[in-house]
Amino acid sequence: MAHLIRLDDSLALDGLTPQCVQESLHQAHQRLLDIADRRGQYADQTGWFDLPVATPESLIGRIEERARMLRNMSDIIVVCGVGGSSLGARAGLGFILDNETGLPESSGLQILFAGDSLSPRQLNHSLNRLAERRFSVIVVSKTGTTIETSIAFQVLWSELLRRFGADDARKRVVAVTDSQRGPLFSMARAKGFETFEFPRDIGGRYSVLSVAGLLPLAAAGLDIRSVLQGAAEQRDAILGTSPADNDSLRYATVRRLLSESGKSTELLAPFEPSLCSLAEWWKQLFGESEGKDGKGIFPASAVFTTDLHSLGQYIQQGPRLLFETIVDICAPMDRTLSLDPGELEGLEYLAGRSLANVNRQAQIATALAHHDGGVPVLRLSIPDMSARSFGAVVYFLEVACAVGGCLLGVNPFNQPGVDEYKKRMYELLNAPGMPSKRY
Amino acid sequence: MAHLIRLDDSLALDGLTPQCVQESLHQAHQRLLDIADRRGQYADQTGWFDLPVATPESLIGRIEERARMLRNMSDIIVVCGVGGSSLGARAGLGFILDNETGLPESSGLQILFAGDSLSPRQLNHSLNRLAERRFSVIVVSKTGTTIETSIAFQVLWSELLRRFGADDARKRVVAVTDSQRGPLFSMARAKGFETFEFPRDIGGRYSVLSVAGLLPLAAAGLDIRSVLQGAAEQRDAILGTSPADNDSLRYATVRRLLSESGKSTELLAPFEPSLCSLAEWWKQLFGESEGKDGKGIFPASAVFTTDLHSLGQYIQQGPRLLFETIVDICAPMDRTLSLDPGELEGLEYLAGRSLANVNRQAQIATALAHHDGGVPVLRLSIPDMSARSFGAVVYFLEVACAVGGCLLGVNPFNQPGVDEYKKRMYELLNAPGMPSKRY
Repeated sequence: MAHLIRLDDSLALDGLTPQCVQESLHQAHQRLLDIADRRGQYADQTGWFDLPVATPESLIGRIEERARMLRNMSDIIVVCGVGGSSLGARAGLGFILDNETGLPESSGLQILFAGDSLSPRQLNHSLNRLAERRFSVIVVSKTGTTIETSIAFQVLWSELLRRFGADDARKRVVAVTDSQRGPLFSMARAKGFETFEFPRDIGGRYSVLSVAGLLPLAAAGLDIRSVLQGAAEQRDAILGTSPADNDSLRYATVRRLLSESGKSTELLAPFEPSLCSLAEWWKQLFGESEGKDGKGIFPASAVFTTDLHSLGQYIQQGPRLLFETIVDICAPMDRTLSLDPGELEGLEYLAGRSLANVNRQAQIATALAHHDGGVPVLRLSIPDMSARSFGAVVYFLEVACAVGGCLLGVNPFNQPGVDEYKKRMYELLNAPGMPSKRY
Repeated sequence: MAHLIRLDDSLALDGLTPQCVQESLHQAHQRLLDIADRRGQYADQTGWFDLPVATPESLIGRIEERARMLRNMSDIIVVCGVGGSSLGARAGLGFILDNETGLPESSGLQILFAGDSLSPRQLNHSLNRLAERRFSVIVVSKTGTTIETSIAFQVLWSELLRRFGADDARKRVVAVTDSQRGPLFSMARAKGFETFEFPRDIGGRYSVLSVAGLLPLAAAGLDIRSVLQGAAEQRDAILGTSPADNDSLRYATVRRLLSESGKSTELLAPFEPSLCSLAEWWKQLFGESEGKDGKGIFPASAVFTTDLHSLGQYIQQGPRLLFETIVDICAPMDRTLSLDPGELEGLEYLAGRSLANVNRQAQIATALAHHDGGVPVLRLSIPDMSARSFGAVVYFLEVACAVGGCLLGVNPFNQPGVDEYKKRMYELLNAPGMPSKRY
């Protein structure tokens, strides 16, 4: 069973003994079996593990049907959510379509993300884009209480009512939320919105392959069956491969060992700007899963070669606390640009190469240079930028993250610290006049 | 002389003694005087220090005139550059106009950034956007040899020739480069492009207030005189304030002391998504200036409240190696959205507040929560998102960075490590067949 996603750790193992890696891989495999068999204390949070193979045809069909309806009635589909209710869909759009904030102008349909900040500037900007365009809203919130999403949705709902009238407006909303409780659930029932259940046994950051991610992707016209198929193939590979050849477990293992050897920060670095949103999703997945009890690797990202012109100096010669995970696309999409020697003043040595080839040489050069500078370099290879590969890489990383968190000795499925600022914010908002006294 | 930009360090000083801060501030002040008086070993790299007060009227007028010409002949103006030849202009557009990659659709003019990656997908995307639109190109490269910029410019130049013919095409290019040498300089002379001199005594990351940043900003229709004025006012404040009240020196000092106390990473965090590009510019400024000789603070960024839903958990409860610098806009632009209690199911406590006010409470809550969690929090307050404030914050940070680098004992104006991957890349590109042997 071949992995779709491969890990090359040949430039990352200096100072790690093979025995140490093998031992850790063995432990990782035990954790994988616990998760796969729904054993252990986190069994009620691992609903994501079987999504690629257990999502009912009826649900897939319903998602596709609703997505088609939204597309037919819209110039712009707004995806209203934040964190795990936004980053997965954004990652998919960036990865597959080259555009994290909308489809190509030529397609006649755009996706707009909203409900992920409290910035009036951004909300006004969104409303301006919607003016005089037919639009609909997919609102995603597991609990239905998230303040950013709730505020933006209320504003969008008012706009829908004003523009389309009550009966048409309610057909333009689809809610993905808890199936029994919460303000969004109540509102959906009262107004008659179409709703999909946000499964209780799946946390936001593991929800890309659930309806929370699939509905926005389908609304953008993407083939969600291929996404699930890629994830299912990757799942088979992970379950069917021995620990020594299991690249997802190896990623979990090597990054854990690098962390123990003093590397505090991982820099995820694609060489393709449209993978920026995949990196943002990855940051939540790993940062929120690991960063607790004083533990965890700081998840940072960069887009190369762009950011070699800003962070490259620090990476090469700053403190040795980084390791780097390069995201490699084996077969970059889009026609390659053959470089014409006649026009290349000072660039004659590039004649006859494709731009994709130059980008690949830059990637190899970067890995070698950073490794020589004392930065362990991992390479995550993805076949291409298809829907299938997106499903595969999402699943690969989810497993690595869950297993890695268990190795670290934390609960990789909760986020107890996120509530700290929320608690204080609600205090401040409920007690006008108080806030500025202390700060 | 009042600072336009203010620093609040009241949540960052736990564990630092006032004497220690005072001593360090005194040293910082000495370094400032060295830079201001063009003394010391870096005197030939501090041309940026006097830009706000020494840019000749004739140059400003010429920039404005050329910007007007480009606007008149273009639907899209392409800014072709990377690193310091791109990030400053992007930061200005994001800060002042709410759009780092283009102007509002309604303005009829768009700015497109190119030449900052080797991605064929991105270059194709740019070419598609230019199809059937009138366009012109500002190409910025100090040496004229940067590979990303050179390749993209050659492709754009071919497109200009094809679309507009040789005589019109050459009028659609403005080059900002060295005034005597380099391939871009030679090509500009041969083809007859309008050129502006990229000053030799200013490095790319300190070039925002030079023609390299001002020309793209003027092309976008921004008031570059206000940018320079804000910077000049901030310069007066920095030169006219005692060390104890000098917030730019204080920023340099406190972050240095935090680094010495074990904080390896600084997280710059605006609460306004359109300031994302300011953060990218800041990362280059500080990362490239400090990250050498095994020293320097790792520059990371986040946009809040958005990324509180991804990085918030790690910040609150992960390893205690971060400090945070919140970017506060005192008077956010754009009309505020008053929240209507009638439509606020579950959000009744927000009735009557503006969204900007809710965002501010979130900011205060975040600072308090993170500080209580053991994260020192600095707050950088900026009056508003005007051109004047942009000039001020750029200058404030440039001074803090240069002074801080001197305190650290590194040369804050060079970037010797950036060449490592370039050397290897040129080797790989000049020796086909070799590359894959080693990796």
